[in-house]
Amino acid sequence: MVKTKRLCTLLCRLMALGATVSAAIVMATSHEKANFYSVSFEAKYSHTPAFKYFVIANAIVSVYGVLVLFLPSESLLWRLVVALDVVFTLLLTSSVSAALAIAQVGKHGNSYAGWLPICGQVPNYCGHVKGALVAGFIGVILYALLILYSIHTVLDPLLLRKN
Amino acid sequence: MVKTKRLCTLLCRLMALGATVSAAIVMATSHEKANFYSVSFEAKYSHTPAFKYFVIANAIVSVYGVLVLFLPSESLLWRLVVALDVVFTLLLTSSVSAALAIAQVGKHGNSYAGWLPICGQVPNYCGHVKGALVAGFIGVILYALLILYSIHTVLDPLLLRKN
Repeated sequence: MVKTKRLCTLLCRLMALGATVSAAIVMATSHEKANFYSVSFEAKYSHTPAFKYFVIANAIVSVYGVLVLFLPSESLLWRLVVALDVVFTLLLTSSVSAALAIAQVGKHGNSYAGWLPICGQVPNYCGHVKGALVAGFIGVILYALLILYSIHTVLDPLLLRKN
Repeated sequence: MVKTKRLCTLLCRLMALGATVSAAIVMATSHEKANFYSVSFEAKYSHTPAFKYFVIANAIVSVYGVLVLFLPSESLLWRLVVALDVVFTLLLTSSVSAALAIAQVGKHGNSYAGWLPICGQVPNYCGHVKGALVAGFIGVILYALLILYSIHTVLDPLLLRKN
């Protein structure tokens, strides 16, 4: 039973690592050149601070995800990992939602502010960004589940166990 | 000692409640009319999906913050509160960073996407949004501290206690 649970957590961590690594790579490789009324312009993730933050945050969480995999299962440091999980999940959440907010403006524009949508001109770039956001979102969900599972194991918040 | 700790947590929760309530109110009351080249336009929080999300998220977390204050200190439901704290802090974090990303475009624009800054035309609106973001950010920090403190109390992640 304990072994199955440990395997599930490990699997969850591996999937979360895959999600954050692919989110960072897909976002970092997103660029497209387009011509708009004979003006050539390039869409690149590094032109938007929120997307740069997204790549950096996902890279940091990926490094953390790799390091955690090397921690022996009997180490007392797993208690610290619960706290670190919270910190890195908050980092990941903030980066995904900042990038999502900008992507929403890129797709639909904001007529009140006079910001035009750009996805019509650079559809491939927008597709790339969308893929990265989906991967990042999966990473957030998996890390949130890991935290809630840790809390469930330690605290029994739903009071399922009889004392 | 236990009483002092409980008082600190209560104080932290009260401050967090104050922060989220004021963030929601300040954002919701932010609007300004301006004339730009003889075209009159109104800047309002409801024109931006990220700001609407910010108001809704802060309102939800405020309601949660009020409800938690009524929980008796000896209730076993405090274990559930740790899990709920995590969920609502993630909600709050995502709303603050989405609003921050949009506010950054509003202030500095994005020359690559052709999005012009609007804060020059509606400085009071931008000031309001800034105030709301600061309050929301304080709320996030306080809730993050509450979670880390809960984990510290239950798990001793820094291994300070001798077993």
